[in-house]
Amino acid sequence: MTSMEQQETLTANGSGRRGRSRDSRLKGPSDKKRSLAALSLASKIGYLTISDLLPTKEAITSALHGQLPIRIYDKGERIFPVEQAEPILFLVRTGAVNVFRKAPSGTRYSVKNLESGAVFGEMPEYGQTMLGAEAEALVLTELAIIRPPEFEAMISRSPTLAVNLVRGLGSRLVEVEKQHEQAAFQTIPARLATLLLRMASSENMVKGISHQDIADELGVYRETVTNAMAELKKAGLVAVGRRRITLLDPQRLVEIDSV
Amino acid sequence: MTSMEQQETLTANGSGRRGRSRDSRLKGPSDKKRSLAALSLASKIGYLTISDLLPTKEAITSALHGQLPIRIYDKGERIFPVEQAEPILFLVRTGAVNVFRKAPSGTRYSVKNLESGAVFGEMPEYGQTMLGAEAEALVLTELAIIRPPEFEAMISRSPTLAVNLVRGLGSRLVEVEKQHEQAAFQTIPARLATLLLRMASSENMVKGISHQDIADELGVYRETVTNAMAELKKAGLVAVGRRRITLLDPQRLVEIDSV
Repeated sequence: MTSMEQQETLTANGSGRRGRSRDSRLKGPSDKKRSLAALSLASKIGYLTISDLLPTKEAITSALHGQLPIRIYDKGERIFPVEQAEPILFLVRTGAVNVFRKAPSGTRYSVKNLESGAVFGEMPEYGQTMLGAEAEALVLTELAIIRPPEFEAMISRSPTLAVNLVRGLGSRLVEVEKQHEQAAFQTIPARLATLLLRMASSENMVKGISHQDIADELGVYRETVTNAMAELKKAGLVAVGRRRITLLDPQRLVEIDSV
Repeated sequence: MTSMEQQETLTANGSGRRGRSRDSRLKGPSDKKRSLAALSLASKIGYLTISDLLPTKEAITSALHGQLPIRIYDKGERIFPVEQAEPILFLVRTGAVNVFRKAPSGTRYSVKNLESGAVFGEMPEYGQTMLGAEAEALVLTELAIIRPPEFEAMISRSPTLAVNLVRGLGSRLVEVEKQHEQAAFQTIPARLATLLLRMASSENMVKGISHQDIADELGVYRETVTNAMAELKKAGLVAVGRRRITLLDPQRLVEIDSV
């Protein structure tokens, strides 16, 4: 049974899945869930910047002020989606871009702001996607437009750019595949165990981290973290103090963590 | 509330999460879950082949029979993990490699077999990982060994390899990010709706697909698919016939699907 199929009830406000009619699930996600989803997009959109990709300051300056076609957007003007659904990347030269997601009701969920040097857009063949998010100019903004032929030419021209790009996409791919494996196949206590093991000091202590921090990291509610932590505590695997979690049995934590 | 936190009970065999003690969750995943997890790894490990990456038959032949150091493995010999935990890629020249995962109990879950031209190994910086899986030779097998400096040199030397590699990693990254978004933030009915919309013909029909096929695709139990399908049916969104699903209200299916 995958973790998606497991029962987890939200106890803090006294209501859980059990109290909700089955049919309400078809009405679409709650506001809280939409906020969490928007937060999760922040790490997926615009994660590349030109300074990660190019080797020298001169190369960065030349990319920012080079021969790529430029478009200027007024404050509040829509950047993405574009009129034609064609692959396109944007490189922020000056100004700032707000990326957000809109619910069918019209409510906006802010994803992140992008500034000079950031790359974003929809070019799935090259690892860039907006995952349904939209973008508009926060202030007067200048963007360089990169289409697939220019992008390929840039890769072919600069071995350093190619190596950095493969590294950027590759590291991200491995990270997302690990997260996906966890989200799909591990219970919440197991995901919590993984996170604690990753964050622990050499003395098997995790300090200065709140349940809310952990919840944000796992993409779940704080109350869910509190429940899962109680399970680990009850099983004698951790001791919980004020902003300090001690791993009492790291070996067993490793075991519940391994699918 | 994310989908990981939602209650889903397995009704077919009369037992569900409700019947299991909370504590049993700390004992680690079931066999069924381990099998599903191994299946999911199959798409994540060894997905690159040299023929996807290199432009010509000559280049492929040269990579397979070039200057890379070679190691020969006897039938049944362990290939991965290697003694030192260092980044390493393997290119299968001849023979075949079995990739599998081992439970703490010793039970093996087969992930996949790799043949000539396949690339696998642990080099997270470049998008390759074993995600905890192991590898051994199925027959007498010849592997070429690629370490990070050679890999970088290969990328720098061939712009075509670089572009193909960026494409291979990039497409995969976008695909995994979409899957991850779904697994983390959508309910099972919503994930089912997404899949049906993707598979439907222009007449809004999905033909020749069993609940088990859908379950394999979503990484859940068949019974869970049956339950979710019943919800969509009860809500008047689909009609289900013999190996034929008709989407009665595609617009509402799109809506439950969008986070």
